[in-house]
Amino acid sequence: HAGRREVMTVDDARYRIGLETARNLDPEAPERLEAALKEVAPGLYRHIVESAFGDILSRTGLDPKTREIATVAALTALGHPRPQLRFHLNAALNVGCTREELAEVLVQMTVYAGVPAALNALYLAKEVFAERDAKGLS
Amino acid sequence: HAGRREVMTVDDARYRIGLETARNLDPEAPERLEAALKEVAPGLYRHIVESAFGDILSRTGLDPKTREIATVAALTALGHPRPQLRFHLNAALNVGCTREELAEVLVQMTVYAGVPAALNALYLAKEVFAERDAKGLS
Amino acid sequence: HAGRREVMTVDDARYRIGLETARNLDPEAPERLEAALKEVAPGLYRHIVESAFGDILSRTGLDPKTREIATVAALTALGHPRPQLRFHLNAALNVGCTREELAEVLVQMTVYAGVPAALNALYLAKEVFAERDAKGLS
Amino acid sequence: HAGRREVMTVDDARYRIGLETARNLDPEAPERLEAALKEVAPGLYRHIVESAFGDILSRTGLDPKTREIATVAALTALGHPRPQLRFHLNAALNVGCTREELAEVLVQMTVYAGVPAALNALYLAKEVFAERDAKGLS
Amino acid sequence: HAGRREVMTVDDARYRIGLETARNLDPEAPERLEAALKEVAPGLYRHIVESAFGDILSRTGLDPKTREIATVAALTALGHPRPQLRFHLNAALNVGCTREELAEVLVQMTVYAGVPAALNALYLAKEVFAERDAKGLS
Amino acid sequence: HAGRREVMTVDDARYRIGLETARNLDPEAPERLEAALKEVAPGLYRHIVESAFGDILSRTGLDPKTREIATVAALTALGHPRPQLRFHLNAALNVGCTREELAEVLVQMTVYAGVPAALNALYLAKEVFAERDAKGLS
Repeated sequence: HAGRREVMTVDDARYRIGLETARNLDPEAPERLEAALKEVAPGLYRHIVESAFGDILSRTGLDPKTREIATVAALTALGHPRPQLRFHLNAALNVGCTREELAEVLVQMTVYAGVPAALNALYLAKEVFAERDAKGLS
Repeated sequence: HAGRREVMTVDDARYRIGLETARNLDPEAPERLEAALKEVAPGLYRHIVESAFGDILSRTGLDPKTREIATVAALTALGHPRPQLRFHLNAALNVGCTREELAEVLVQMTVYAGVPAALNALYLAKEVFAERDAKGLS
Repeated sequence: HAGRREVMTVDDARYRIGLETARNLDPEAPERLEAALKEVAPGLYRHIVESAFGDILSRTGLDPKTREIATVAALTALGHPRPQLRFHLNAALNVGCTREELAEVLVQMTVYAGVPAALNALYLAKEVFAERDAKGLS
Repeated sequence: HAGRREVMTVDDARYRIGLETARNLDPEAPERLEAALKEVAPGLYRHIVESAFGDILSRTGLDPKTREIATVAALTALGHPRPQLRFHLNAALNVGCTREELAEVLVQMTVYAGVPAALNALYLAKEVFAERDAKGLS
Repeated sequence: HAGRREVMTVDDARYRIGLETARNLDPEAPERLEAALKEVAPGLYRHIVESAFGDILSRTGLDPKTREIATVAALTALGHPRPQLRFHLNAALNVGCTREELAEVLVQMTVYAGVPAALNALYLAKEVFAERDAKGLS
Repeated sequence: HAGRREVMTVDDARYRIGLETARNLDPEAPERLEAALKEVAPGLYRHIVESAFGDILSRTGLDPKTREIATVAALTALGHPRPQLRFHLNAALNVGCTREELAEVLVQMTVYAGVPAALNALYLAKEVFAERDAKGLS
């Protein structure tokens, strides 16, 4: 499977687009994801970069800020994907959302997913904001 | 409880703000919700207008388009709230989102909530778009 | 498996207790469930009567009304199990809950599961109440 | 927004009712929630007290014990809101539920939400009960 | 985006593999999906064929029967994706699962996702089996 | 309730079958579960062994490997039951699944439950695999 791709220039194009899209959200995201998946599911890193970042998130129909807001809302409503909510709260700030905008999205989730889902997302946001303060990030 | 409110001018203010916010999403929304809840939970209509629309959705920290995109993403991820997804797809278009933007949000949900959740939201969007075509709406 | 049970008097005891518990919720429930599962999963009817109704719901630690309220709340929060929510709204009324109490539970779910989950449960309750009106039931 | 409220006596009434309702569940709940949300979403504390506790949970249609049982069942079924399940297990005991009644509710959730959701709630209940033992609470 | 792909032979390879994988599950699946998405999200059909069917489901690490069983279990647990559960119950039978095996998977879900989720999947399986009887399918 | 059972030979049969089924998944599972539930819900240990392991998981309609794959897929899709996913990843390996097969199931969940649910299951699988390496287990 991997071999099939090496000679195919298209996947490299998708991979490069995906890599660029992922790095806009977090410059270290691709390397971290690759390291995390290397042992357990080696093909998945490349698939996520090509398919999620390269095919979907790189599309021009929505600006990156709006995409991140949609993702943060969805992850808050699902409730269980905490590491990904942490990643996308950071990513949203990295592409230009303000902390106030993110807090508004999370507060709004009280209406659609209930107070507990919103509170737990806000508690995570608080941690993320404090970590960014410590690093001097917006 | 209801009596307590009649003499309280503040709730009327919240109610008026909520009513205006709800009507911006769909001019007939308040009347429809009131009629739907009248027999089964009479106090809830007023609570939703005051609390969800008046306190939360009327806040100025996010523009109505972004709020609707967050809501559409959350409802798509949850999967089960179909009448509310229908309402908010319409509401999103009523406050200025384009069909293309909404479709982008739903396509993006393949990544975060899975292909089935995204497909079912897109099938509903197709129905909503057709209904709006029939009414001459954008 | 089924054969093993025929000679075992204990399961018959559990089955009888389960049958009685199920019939208290809805006199026709066991027959309906048996008919619904006969072709597709014949052993499951007996397992549900023995295990869910006979082992769990027949326990004396909570009264039937409180059990039904807990079930209605859980099914409303999950959102997708509509036929079971319909069944348990009826069952709750059959064991002595009032419509007002059930509506209170569903309204309360706006806080914990969000407005959409609560609204969809209330719309279903409205249908259930109308069906019971037509049958002259409380 | 906040300014609008300062001059409005009604919200103060809702806030006072909400505060009392929240303190019945846990005397320190309001202060803890206010502190937790102060930095990240300052308006949400007051909204939750007024809207969730003041408008919904203070309603007289259900006694506090039954309300807590419904909430515990719903949070167990959702599975992800662990801090809120911890809070409401404590709150249920504070308003007069027994540990045995709560355990019955959680055991019953095996039927409606599956064994894993019920087990994880029971493991949390065990922690809560041990913490209360250490504090000499029922 | 679409234009970029037309000159890229790699995506065609992924598309052909995906098409073949999808047609093994249901010979008409690709055409139906393409028609369903044509108006609302034209790029998504090709993405799903390439990415879900071509990259993931075509992998050799699991046989098609086991893949379908995993999918049926997951969709049953999620509860809301009914059209996809219908599709995969059919697909599972098309790749060689028996009705008895599928019923076993669904019955097993009573333990992990609760009785309601399992029952609703079984009721859908019953419909699927009847439709296949009418078509003379296994 | 427990007393009723002591004189009933049938439940003992179900218990023994359940115990054997549970021990095939993990030899120490029954003792661990019994200890974990002893204080908080003493009857539930026996119910789970008899009902989940004895009635459902011991059925001959599916081999243990396929049952574990279905369970792993369902728990991954639900997202929140982490201790049970850990247990069943181990159980799946104990009954003969390979790590590669499990990783395939989890990767496949990107399609049906979204990338976050799949990633979190894979991160847990990585921990499980490392723990088994340390114990010299497959």
